[in-house]
Amino acid sequence: MTSGPAPVSPYGTPSRRQEPAVTDPASSPRLPGFGSDNVAGISPAILKALAAANEGAMPSYGADAISARVEARFAALFEHEVKVLLVSTGTAANALALSVLTPPWGAVLCHADSHIENDECGAPEFFTGGAKLVHVPGVGAKIDPDALREAAQRNRGDVHCVQPSCVSITQASELGTLYSLSETAAIGAVCRQAGLPLHMDGSRFANAAAALGVRPAEMTWKAGVDILSFGATKNGAMGVEALVLFDPARAGELAFRRKRGGHLASKMRFLAAQMEAYLEGDLWLANARHANAMAARLASGLGGVGGAEIQGAVEANMLFVRLPQPMTDGLLAQGFRFYTERWGVGVVRLVTSFATSEADVDRLVGAARALA
Amino acid sequence: MTSGPAPVSPYGTPSRRQEPAVTDPASSPRLPGFGSDNVAGISPAILKALAAANEGAMPSYGADAISARVEARFAALFEHEVKVLLVSTGTAANALALSVLTPPWGAVLCHADSHIENDECGAPEFFTGGAKLVHVPGVGAKIDPDALREAAQRNRGDVHCVQPSCVSITQASELGTLYSLSETAAIGAVCRQAGLPLHMDGSRFANAAAALGVRPAEMTWKAGVDILSFGATKNGAMGVEALVLFDPARAGELAFRRKRGGHLASKMRFLAAQMEAYLEGDLWLANARHANAMAARLASGLGGVGGAEIQGAVEANMLFVRLPQPMTDGLLAQGFRFYTERWGVGVVRLVTSFATSEADVDRLVGAARALA
Amino acid sequence: MTSGPAPVSPYGTPSRRQEPAVTDPASSPRLPGFGSDNVAGISPAILKALAAANEGAMPSYGADAISARVEARFAALFEHEVKVLLVSTGTAANALALSVLTPPWGAVLCHADSHIENDECGAPEFFTGGAKLVHVPGVGAKIDPDALREAAQRNRGDVHCVQPSCVSITQASELGTLYSLSETAAIGAVCRQAGLPLHMDGSRFANAAAALGVRPAEMTWKAGVDILSFGATKNGAMGVEALVLFDPARAGELAFRRKRGGHLASKMRFLAAQMEAYLEGDLWLANARHANAMAARLASGLGGVGGAEIQGAVEANMLFVRLPQPMTDGLLAQGFRFYTERWGVGVVRLVTSFATSEADVDRLVGAARALA
Amino acid sequence: MTSGPAPVSPYGTPSRRQEPAVTDPASSPRLPGFGSDNVAGISPAILKALAAANEGAMPSYGADAISARVEARFAALFEHEVKVLLVSTGTAANALALSVLTPPWGAVLCHADSHIENDECGAPEFFTGGAKLVHVPGVGAKIDPDALREAAQRNRGDVHCVQPSCVSITQASELGTLYSLSETAAIGAVCRQAGLPLHMDGSRFANAAAALGVRPAEMTWKAGVDILSFGATKNGAMGVEALVLFDPARAGELAFRRKRGGHLASKMRFLAAQMEAYLEGDLWLANARHANAMAARLASGLGGVGGAEIQGAVEANMLFVRLPQPMTDGLLAQGFRFYTERWGVGVVRLVTSFATSEADVDRLVGAARALA
Repeated sequence: MTSGPAPVSPYGTPSRRQEPAVTDPASSPRLPGFGSDNVAGISPAILKALAAANEGAMPSYGADAISARVEARFAALFEHEVKVLLVSTGTAANALALSVLTPPWGAVLCHADSHIENDECGAPEFFTGGAKLVHVPGVGAKIDPDALREAAQRNRGDVHCVQPSCVSITQASELGTLYSLSETAAIGAVCRQAGLPLHMDGSRFANAAAALGVRPAEMTWKAGVDILSFGATKNGAMGVEALVLFDPARAGELAFRRKRGGHLASKMRFLAAQMEAYLEGDLWLANARHANAMAARLASGLGGVGGAEIQGAVEANMLFVRLPQPMTDGLLAQGFRFYTERWGVGVVRLVTSFATSEADVDRLVGAARALA
Repeated sequence: MTSGPAPVSPYGTPSRRQEPAVTDPASSPRLPGFGSDNVAGISPAILKALAAANEGAMPSYGADAISARVEARFAALFEHEVKVLLVSTGTAANALALSVLTPPWGAVLCHADSHIENDECGAPEFFTGGAKLVHVPGVGAKIDPDALREAAQRNRGDVHCVQPSCVSITQASELGTLYSLSETAAIGAVCRQAGLPLHMDGSRFANAAAALGVRPAEMTWKAGVDILSFGATKNGAMGVEALVLFDPARAGELAFRRKRGGHLASKMRFLAAQMEAYLEGDLWLANARHANAMAARLASGLGGVGGAEIQGAVEANMLFVRLPQPMTDGLLAQGFRFYTERWGVGVVRLVTSFATSEADVDRLVGAARALA
Repeated sequence: MTSGPAPVSPYGTPSRRQEPAVTDPASSPRLPGFGSDNVAGISPAILKALAAANEGAMPSYGADAISARVEARFAALFEHEVKVLLVSTGTAANALALSVLTPPWGAVLCHADSHIENDECGAPEFFTGGAKLVHVPGVGAKIDPDALREAAQRNRGDVHCVQPSCVSITQASELGTLYSLSETAAIGAVCRQAGLPLHMDGSRFANAAAALGVRPAEMTWKAGVDILSFGATKNGAMGVEALVLFDPARAGELAFRRKRGGHLASKMRFLAAQMEAYLEGDLWLANARHANAMAARLASGLGGVGGAEIQGAVEANMLFVRLPQPMTDGLLAQGFRFYTERWGVGVVRLVTSFATSEADVDRLVGAARALA
Repeated sequence: MTSGPAPVSPYGTPSRRQEPAVTDPASSPRLPGFGSDNVAGISPAILKALAAANEGAMPSYGADAISARVEARFAALFEHEVKVLLVSTGTAANALALSVLTPPWGAVLCHADSHIENDECGAPEFFTGGAKLVHVPGVGAKIDPDALREAAQRNRGDVHCVQPSCVSITQASELGTLYSLSETAAIGAVCRQAGLPLHMDGSRFANAAAALGVRPAEMTWKAGVDILSFGATKNGAMGVEALVLFDPARAGELAFRRKRGGHLASKMRFLAAQMEAYLEGDLWLANARHANAMAARLASGLGGVGGAEIQGAVEANMLFVRLPQPMTDGLLAQGFRFYTERWGVGVVRLVTSFATSEADVDRLVGAARALA
């Protein structure tokens, strides 16, 4: 074995960000995880669809019949002609979407609390060839339309500066908040006026749709969204996200970029099968409604616990609670799992999923009450 | 919806490269596909493992127990300390491997008939920041060690030129040929002497190992391989490949690059579960032995058909045959599927997989004989 | 002529950022420009050196005798072994410097008011392969060491996040302020502790050195600077900047990156000749002292004009003044040139150079007084 | 000073490619260099223009009057509306030109013996975001139109493959050969038919124009060229090349890319002044005619020397001669300078420039004769 260009890592061994470990797994074998919705497994119907898709040979790389059906189904769901490209992660979906919306010298206008800014290790910069993510302020991790209007004109035409090139919003946001229809439309109107395309990071689109109770078309293209990252992984799939293009013209470029990014699955039928089952009978909405309901139940329960203060409204499947440190420590020590940093002193984040049960919620609430 | 930076596609709509369509699917509902090993589905044991992995919550991003077991299992299989990173496609595995072996101004020395050169839409260039793939000649899609020795010194230190930085070989090759142990060792020796790390694209490593009948350690680190793309997808998995690092030092950088490339699966347990089942009880070898045997049977059968000329030796699960045009046309018309271009006039490529049955082979041979 | 991939420019025609045009050039033929120090020409001694360097043939690409002398001279000036690479623009110098200090998934810690962040159209992102510029706060466009200490640890080892990889400070800053020796040393100490290399953007290093009145070694490597962009263009050269590496180990990589960036001049002797003349007899310091003195004179003069308020201390060759709008309008109308935006309502930026005369200053002050 | 990400250079210290050193400089103080045309200095008229441009303040970044005049002059010279962007090196000109003609997943069709392929350390890959340079064969370093026609269709629309996106030819070529008008037009016709834009690397465009004796318009846009890298540095300038765009639509994108690449000179007037003087009174043609004549004289002289065999026709300012090894060794020992590798056993390259004198030529010929 030769040594070659020595690997440089002053960064230490990268850790997989993970929920705090259970201190005594034996004594708390199945305590629920509230760290993220991605600690859950797969919805039974989706698992079943994988098995069903395993019959015989099928053309690879998306030329299979299931992939075709999925695209048609998305067109029906969104009441609009669409092009759909499936990928296996949300980071890939977002970074690929942005890569067809900005040149390398562009400014991607987004909120400082967005996933693309904080949680993708620079994937947007990588896929766009070095575009810059420029922050637009707004409360609750949501872009303010007036601030956007100003940012959309900043440095226009100045050859020394990156150029406003597209806008990205997150629905539901990283703080679990929602853009109302009129809020999305206001963003869309600014984009249209400024000639900037609009991307929606919808890794939790289902939770937003379930909470808002409106048609997907209203939330997207009717409000000015050009490309949607439609998430499924966090809400019951094994690993599939759809890039939904309301303007088919960008699909050609995107197809090449997807392949070049290593995101064109050879046995695409299994991504398609997940997505088909996810959409079938509105499983996506049912799962999201359940997750949202569990978050509400959690908020309601913790709201009655002395010392626990819910932060802001709970709109989707995520809540932020300020807990007394002993309560936090006690819950973690008992094996409950959740993140405790990044959102202010004493604030913890609790995320529910399609797999969270009422009993899971009640156990956490009960434990908190006991520690109060 | 705003228009924004108009999508430019003078390239037409990209096609998914696919096997020729069945002309009358009704009359030939289940004719086997010989276009690629990726038209097959999933091995039953692997599908079962996905279901088994679906129990309860698990830490995401690879901090789960299955992922840990998989790394240990690879260490045992290769009789060497290893770091293992799982990704979902072979293109991702190769491009990520190269990205830690070359600087952007490097020359990746490879064969002109390699997958990284021809079939990944420039993924290596993308992930390496623009390194150049430089061809080293050799027969049967295999690099010649003497030619490599010369290429490894070319333009060294000349600031005007890309610098030889690593070597990539394919085992089994894109032409279905194999590097013998001594051939790999000869390549490895040149690399060691020149200070260049060695990557092995093993998307069909299993077929090679089954055919050579040697220990994986012999084929890899003992012969000088630094990083192996260990394929599973083509040989029975749904979508998982392992980056096996025999030098753990590069794992840190690779972890960041994997995330940045959108290839860090959140529900990693399902990639790990596939791989665990693939390795369990040497399923990987059993599947590959079967595929290889089917290729041999096909070669043997077609060898006796008038007008069909097998091209070269059939060493793994792929064969190239020159057929009379009417025979090719006849087979395609009957619904058999395979690629007919890229390898010379009249030459078709036939690929077998773990899912190819003896009956599948015999049906093709019989049809060819009838058309002779 | 074929059309090919259509050029997309929703950004309009990029403008060269320039000083406001003289409204009536005939009536004010030679009014001084205070827009930037780069509106000045070349110091006579440097122009003369170009002519002197034009004798006979010389090896190209930096193998000439003048280039060798320049490197030796820098070693003497900085009292330290150095490697020196010359380039023709400050943007190239900065972006190349950063490219050897950060991996693509790194965070370059810098001030929000830095040139690399605002005025290089994403050159750092381009040359680094997509690293992210992360802001560290501090007053007067200078990084606060305590804030840096925190930023240097943020998200360390978290594979989802870009990793703190290097620090860049600007001396003199974009607001014309200076890091004192102890301030630089404080930054350097944090860097050393955190294992992060330190870059100094010294496009106005001469102005800082002249103002601080200390040895260049004190301002740089003794305070922890690893790479210095040593500017000459703004202070009398035609177009040359030196990348001064106090750690020679990075010079090899930098040489390849310079060539790859199109910044290896074939007739390097003419870049070297400029730099040699710039350093000869401390012309660089003399020019800077003059520019600084003119800024002080300007501050002094405008300080006595009713309605004009100098903003902050004037430490180098740049000052910011809040003027009544009619005064600004009047000065521009008379043909004086300076920038009026970006620094708050009514605040204008005035920059002096080696070529600014006392008469130039007095004329501006006089005109302002008349408009008061 | 902190250590940070350690610089990795297994490549050794990069050398500046240079002419063989004079063994005894004292005894041969002024022997002419035939290694490259870039070992010459600056034409006197150009040096004078630099001094003339040094009068007073001028707007920076190309908003000066000289830059405007240069663009107008190019329009007149090429009898066509043009946009002109000046840069300081040929590598920058070529890489920037290609960056607006290909997407990252594109194939740049060029000859294997082109400068962009061999002598720019991957600059085209860097500026294009990782496009692939794909070779089109042809004799004398010139692309064959029929081979181009085939390459222009290869893998079109196949999402697994880089896509033919533009064509680049070199005039005069790296072997000193010329495309005749009809040869260029044939290339242009294939491009037009295939919808691919055409770039011409004209670092020695002047030598080609002088030799062909035709109007620049004929050699370029009338034959289908979209972007020309119009060189001046090798032919008497200090360091300036013009990107001449016959289709102004790409100028906007190019302006941002130039800045982002660090190639927007602040004191642009001095690049413009060089170019203005270069074009003034057809100095560019006069210089090139002289260089070509010196090459012809050299060919004629060496043709009469026993053992020296001129390789191919001498069409511009470069010739290749096979010399007996003792003659080569003797010439180098006497201090003559030229390159001896890369072009076959015993073949040396001799390049003449505007500064080569008849005496220079005769001295070399005389020395060769004496060694015969």
